[in-house]
Amino acid sequence: MKRTNYAGLIDEQYEGQTVVLDGWVQKRRDLGGLIFIDLRDREGIVQLAFSDEISKEALEVAELVRSEYVLEVSGIVKKRAEGAINEHIHSGKIEVQVTDIKVLAESKTTPFLIEDGVDASDETRLKYRYLDLRRPEMQENLRIRSKITAATHEFLDQAGFIDIETPYLAKSTPEGARDYLVPSRIYQGAFYALPQSPQLFKQLLMGAGFDRYYQVARAFRDEDLRGDRQPEFTQLDLETSFMDQDEIRELVGQWVASIMQKTVDYDLDPTDIPVLTWEESMRRYGTDKPDMRFDMELQDLSEMMADSDFGVFSGAVANGGMVKAIVVPGGAEHYSRKEIDKLGKYVERFGAKGLAWLKVTEEGIAGPIAKFFTEQGEAILDATGAHAGDLILFAADKPNVVNPTLDALRRMTAKEMNLIDNQKWAFAWIIDWPLFEYQPEEDRWIAAHHPFTMPNEADLPLMATTEGAHKAHAQSYDLVLNGYELGSGSIRIHRMDIQQQMLSALGFTPESAQEAFGFLLEGMEYGFPPMGGIALGLDRLAMLLAGRDNIRDVIAFPKNSKATEPMTEAPTPVSKQQVEGDLGLQAPEYADTDTPNLAEE
Amino acid sequence: MKRTNYAGLIDEQYEGQTVVLDGWVQKRRDLGGLIFIDLRDREGIVQLAFSDEISKEALEVAELVRSEYVLEVSGIVKKRAEGAINEHIHSGKIEVQVTDIKVLAESKTTPFLIEDGVDASDETRLKYRYLDLRRPEMQENLRIRSKITAATHEFLDQAGFIDIETPYLAKSTPEGARDYLVPSRIYQGAFYALPQSPQLFKQLLMGAGFDRYYQVARAFRDEDLRGDRQPEFTQLDLETSFMDQDEIRELVGQWVASIMQKTVDYDLDPTDIPVLTWEESMRRYGTDKPDMRFDMELQDLSEMMADSDFGVFSGAVANGGMVKAIVVPGGAEHYSRKEIDKLGKYVERFGAKGLAWLKVTEEGIAGPIAKFFTEQGEAILDATGAHAGDLILFAADKPNVVNPTLDALRRMTAKEMNLIDNQKWAFAWIIDWPLFEYQPEEDRWIAAHHPFTMPNEADLPLMATTEGAHKAHAQSYDLVLNGYELGSGSIRIHRMDIQQQMLSALGFTPESAQEAFGFLLEGMEYGFPPMGGIALGLDRLAMLLAGRDNIRDVIAFPKNSKATEPMTEAPTPVSKQQVEGDLGLQAPEYADTDTPNLAEE
Repeated sequence: MKRTNYAGLIDEQYEGQTVVLDGWVQKRRDLGGLIFIDLRDREGIVQLAFSDEISKEALEVAELVRSEYVLEVSGIVKKRAEGAINEHIHSGKIEVQVTDIKVLAESKTTPFLIEDGVDASDETRLKYRYLDLRRPEMQENLRIRSKITAATHEFLDQAGFIDIETPYLAKSTPEGARDYLVPSRIYQGAFYALPQSPQLFKQLLMGAGFDRYYQVARAFRDEDLRGDRQPEFTQLDLETSFMDQDEIRELVGQWVASIMQKTVDYDLDPTDIPVLTWEESMRRYGTDKPDMRFDMELQDLSEMMADSDFGVFSGAVANGGMVKAIVVPGGAEHYSRKEIDKLGKYVERFGAKGLAWLKVTEEGIAGPIAKFFTEQGEAILDATGAHAGDLILFAADKPNVVNPTLDALRRMTAKEMNLIDNQKWAFAWIIDWPLFEYQPEEDRWIAAHHPFTMPNEADLPLMATTEGAHKAHAQSYDLVLNGYELGSGSIRIHRMDIQQQMLSALGFTPESAQEAFGFLLEGMEYGFPPMGGIALGLDRLAMLLAGRDNIRDVIAFPKNSKATEPMTEAPTPVSKQQVEGDLGLQAPEYADTDTPNLAEE
Repeated sequence: MKRTNYAGLIDEQYEGQTVVLDGWVQKRRDLGGLIFIDLRDREGIVQLAFSDEISKEALEVAELVRSEYVLEVSGIVKKRAEGAINEHIHSGKIEVQVTDIKVLAESKTTPFLIEDGVDASDETRLKYRYLDLRRPEMQENLRIRSKITAATHEFLDQAGFIDIETPYLAKSTPEGARDYLVPSRIYQGAFYALPQSPQLFKQLLMGAGFDRYYQVARAFRDEDLRGDRQPEFTQLDLETSFMDQDEIRELVGQWVASIMQKTVDYDLDPTDIPVLTWEESMRRYGTDKPDMRFDMELQDLSEMMADSDFGVFSGAVANGGMVKAIVVPGGAEHYSRKEIDKLGKYVERFGAKGLAWLKVTEEGIAGPIAKFFTEQGEAILDATGAHAGDLILFAADKPNVVNPTLDALRRMTAKEMNLIDNQKWAFAWIIDWPLFEYQPEEDRWIAAHHPFTMPNEADLPLMATTEGAHKAHAQSYDLVLNGYELGSGSIRIHRMDIQQQMLSALGFTPESAQEAFGFLLEGMEYGFPPMGGIALGLDRLAMLLAGRDNIRDVIAFPKNSKATEPMTEAPTPVSKQQVEGDLGLQAPEYADTDTPNLAEE
């Protein structure tokens, strides 16, 4: 016997034909002398029928099989009786009457059922990942991911991009996140680092004249894991020479359109993608990755509120802060005072001290603070566009409190009010980012993107001083989808003098700049072309296109929240010979405990 | 100005058109008032002309540019005068008369010329890799590599393979080469290992029901570097379920044919690839990776020589050894006694004690040992097929000396005699390998492929004992091209009982097998399908198709022979905070020396 078809693809077109199928037992129903088995392969399910009349031998074998046994069967495709048709599956109009059966592998009872919506814990799903991945939704997730990379390879190859691999055993450089290190055996005391991105290598490839490079590249960050972070993740990475950012955005737009078409059959016109400056995005949405599937934009009421009787508002403005508001359409009824208090509690994490709000009735504004705005009621409704039945939420503070607060409230209330069209794919380009951002925890300025981002042409004179550089804006462009940052791109610095200014503004001395990035600075003395590119996060893109909310669902063997892989149990202790003998390292004794070393958090 | 075309693609079809080109100055000739610049981009070279008549301003700028400056120029394509035509380049019939020029980047004098056949040292080429990669032959090498991966993605996607990424932060397992380790920060004392191949993960993906998986995967081995080894290398990796080895070889043959077609425009009929058993390959060629571009097969003369008067031959046979010979066509004249002595010296490395030989003249055999074969001259000529003018080389010893000796002599003399057609692509499948091989240095039996290789069906009963298992043969198939192993494949063990027998025959106890491979053994209890696959070495394939003899030439940023990367100088010392603070490790002080730690070699 040799397989002739996928089980899930058999349908009435095959009626009367003999087929050989391989797959797993999804379900078995023994009606006494008549057995039905749902046979599952990666394309779906088909019903097998066994009976004395069809084959006594096959029936006898079928009596012994259990769920998840692996079978090879040969049989004839027959139409089902009218009443037995299952409209929900592709093969629902037929069954395969089995004349031969071979058990290729047996199975113990699985720790959870192989079906969608399984209620096993995340840890159990990861420990038995090979079972979890048998579930149709997980199969579909990884197939969407594969379609994204296939579309990427096809589009970029056609567009003249050269697929070039860059090293994974690379140099540890300062800036950015914490590196994973790989001790060298040959030069003890020295370490490779697993790259956080192919950034420097791709710039060198442009210096080498390849003109258009791309790579589906793994990247590594030894960070503490939250939500959608993984120690290793995948970038769809490209770089071009001699193109300005408009041209690059156009090209990337076409590429993304080809992905959307081939994965979710969605026609994206890349020229329709709105382009917002970073400032505009912050002003209108309070975030640099706005979810534009719905409106509810932030309204700046600072001017109006500067002289307000409500001290919280006027005080905020007086202290150099701002007052902004969002309108929740129809929110007046939905949100009780208690519900609003919950929202207020929630936004404390952004530094908001309480949440001011107004409800709009047919009579005008209402609520505890309405009394402060007896004169301004109409003006507030005009400025916010609020109507009877709406809820207005305010934030009054410094911009770095007001914006994240209202961004969070906007997304949260829109979701709770069912205002988000889940069928919608809302892309946006966010351009013109600040070159630097201030990191209050470390009291220092870091590169908003990375230290190789080209300042805007007009800001080049600012780069001469550290203070000036911190005010510059960048030739950068992030691609946003449904409120997620999909990718981050920029024109790169190709001139040594600007690169040195950039590093200096980051606090590098000439010596430390040389030690960290000397090879790049030296390269720039040998004719590096203007260049720019982008990296899209494959994991996140696959997650969004698969309609999931956790990137673990689109990674075959992800790490858990403690950066371990429950199936193989990596990382594990290794032999003394490997650590001390080969590498000359002294390592602490491994404590086989569930308590990870997260002391520094 | 915005680029309209690649410089190297401009030809007489563009005559009269205005083009904008970007590229590097390959060469500049100043004829006083008339300047020619060869402008180079990734597609080739075009001649730029500058003169007072065309543009005084452009001429003035052109006077200042030097080699490797990056230029943007606008100009009109004009036919060259009859006498100025260069037939060697695509653009040789035209030149671009430049009206506008912009210097995008300047360049210092490069440490070597940017042209093919550069005589810089390997170390200099690696240190200035971005310059080395500008050379046309290096550009071509990496483009061939990119074509291989593009053809792979296209073919396998069409064939229903799902591109699935497996982890690079994996578990260290015994068997195989030395792992690169990555210390865990969260669980100190534990380590990830960079995978030596995705082998176990792809088997688990078959267990998960994906049916057809592939990946262009990086793999890592911390071995001492020789010839064509790199610490990281790339595998074109695939795995299938429910296919037998004939079907897999057919599929892989079609895939390789598509690669050959798209990279070197060669029509390979995969059904024409000869299939040899391992035994046959050893018998006929003395190696498991025969170069079949030429004949010169090994002839076994053991039976004939058992009673020979020449004690070296008869003694070898009496001691359980063998006598084999190759014929070097036309070698009698080419190889003087001195040259033959050199060959004899060379094969000492394989354990050969001297080299016996005969020359064939019109009168019959000749040479110092001819006297021992006065009766057998005709028989030797019959058995070897040697003719007048040929040289016959003999080896008489144990098979593990005779075979490698004659394999080496066969390849060496064929090369020296120019008997190898370099235009030929000689593929071969080598099947039916021994399951185990004895490792004399370690006095133990290791898996000839890897511990997950399925024994031949008929040999399954042998697996019950360690001694029996060591005699078994495997369902394995290596693909060979022009004497290089391109890839290694096999049907895998999908049954726990056989896997346990295999591990036991390798010396694992039930406990150590559980510790190392428990997750796999457990998985096999839940219905793993029959499976098989292959991995092709991309670096080696690209090297062969690019016509190079070092894999470094087809890797963008390779490591040197001490596993360092001279451009970035990786591996490097890192901060105490990274090693001790984050990872809790004590590392030896890094000695900045050229003396690597290769003591154990």
